[in-house]
Amino acid sequence: MSYAKQMLDTYPRDFNLDAQVLAAAIDALADCAQACTACADDCLSEEQVAELVKCIRLCLDCADVCTATLRVLSRQTGYDANVTRPVLEACVAACTSCGDECERHAQMHAHCRVCAEACRRCDQACTQLLAAIS
Amino acid sequence: MSYAKQMLDTYPRDFNLDAQVLAAAIDALADCAQACTACADDCLSEEQVAELVKCIRLCLDCADVCTATLRVLSRQTGYDANVTRPVLEACVAACTSCGDECERHAQMHAHCRVCAEACRRCDQACTQLLAAIS
Amino acid sequence: MSYAKQMLDTYPRDFNLDAQVLAAAIDALADCAQACTACADDCLSEEQVAELVKCIRLCLDCADVCTATLRVLSRQTGYDANVTRPVLEACVAACTSCGDECERHAQMHAHCRVCAEACRRCDQACTQLLAAIS
Amino acid sequence: MSYAKQMLDTYPRDFNLDAQVLAAAIDALADCAQACTACADDCLSEEQVAELVKCIRLCLDCADVCTATLRVLSRQTGYDANVTRPVLEACVAACTSCGDECERHAQMHAHCRVCAEACRRCDQACTQLLAAIS
Repeated sequence: MSYAKQMLDTYPRDFNLDAQVLAAAIDALADCAQACTACADDCLSEEQVAELVKCIRLCLDCADVCTATLRVLSRQTGYDANVTRPVLEACVAACTSCGDECERHAQMHAHCRVCAEACRRCDQACTQLLAAIS
Repeated sequence: MSYAKQMLDTYPRDFNLDAQVLAAAIDALADCAQACTACADDCLSEEQVAELVKCIRLCLDCADVCTATLRVLSRQTGYDANVTRPVLEACVAACTSCGDECERHAQMHAHCRVCAEACRRCDQACTQLLAAIS
Repeated sequence: MSYAKQMLDTYPRDFNLDAQVLAAAIDALADCAQACTACADDCLSEEQVAELVKCIRLCLDCADVCTATLRVLSRQTGYDANVTRPVLEACVAACTSCGDECERHAQMHAHCRVCAEACRRCDQACTQLLAAIS
Repeated sequence: MSYAKQMLDTYPRDFNLDAQVLAAAIDALADCAQACTACADDCLSEEQVAELVKCIRLCLDCADVCTATLRVLSRQTGYDANVTRPVLEACVAACTSCGDECERHAQMHAHCRVCAEACRRCDQACTQLLAAIS
């Protein structure tokens, strides 16, 4: 069982979201933040770095947005859907843009293929959580 | 002149946003992220910490969202309004919720008054930037 | 296989550290950053929050230091041991202090027990990586 | 007066560090984190991006370490010198490496000159704070 799920299981009060869906989103966000940080760095090491500039930028953005979203979702106390919902929407937008761009380079660069997969899984997990909120 | 403005002035290409409005937003985000981090900590030091639990939580969220937004806005290369816009909207939402909550404690706790002010200024700066984008 | 390991396996060049040890550290850092963020929040929800103030503070510090360390370690390009080493040392220090404090509350609060375990595992993984560097 | 100083002035208890020196470090860290984030992006926009790969990487590391350090220093509650000291040492190391690398490109790229200056000022402010701690 992931630490995210263990931490939810030991939360001292009830909370507003389904624990399985929430833990899945937290785990997918951690994977995506790490993959995007690494993919930006991998792109920097490619000879064709000049062609990967947009990919690097979107990976850096996606890593930052996923990290913030992961932290907001890791908190249940004083839950405020007015914050959680737009944060998740911003995260879905970042994962979509970054996943699209990485996919364009997936055949040429294996790290972009793996990163695109992490972005798609994160996008889906956040979308599923958004559906559970609204 | 702030470092944000100096960095924009030395950017090697043209970019899509007004430098004054953008630098003002970046500076307000840095102030708000710091004030929220400190206010959460100040609340932890209050004897009535149990009454400030929601305030602490919203300050932590707001600090995380402002930090991510500050980083996204500090990048001009490969600009993607589909990411920048929802990130700014999430930030406005976080600043509004946090500013409202801090304001409720502003008369009792000076740090909440200062933090509420930082949230309001950040909210305005991001809203102004959003207007320039759409 | 974790995304950290997959990303290392698709890195386009050789790099300076053992991939297994490095991936283990990255995964442990992600777990610890999340567990500490959640544990700080769990503590906020406890009736005895006033007794958990030091625990909350150290959890917040540990989450921030682990997140920065995770990002530094996720980059291989332009590797600089003069940065990586002190960053890992700071992370070990944060995990030790936070793990010690969480352990003091482990019998009373299950989330502190789980978080202490995440801190210890991260401490060990970073210490092992440090040994491989120096 | 900066928000960092205002937040320190409204902290409800006594704390362990000189408020002027501490506020100066927090402000320098915020400037350095932002300048490094922007400089990494500026480098990405240069035609000679391939020659700036090490600079980009060190700027990203420095931004992450400064952000974590800024947050640790913004907390006074439950102060633990065993965490604060190595975190500051790691930050000085990151600012030194990044400042040295940016300085090598300062004549060619104005953004590297501004960023090197932000790194040097941050390095000094953190070194001064370290002296006040030990």
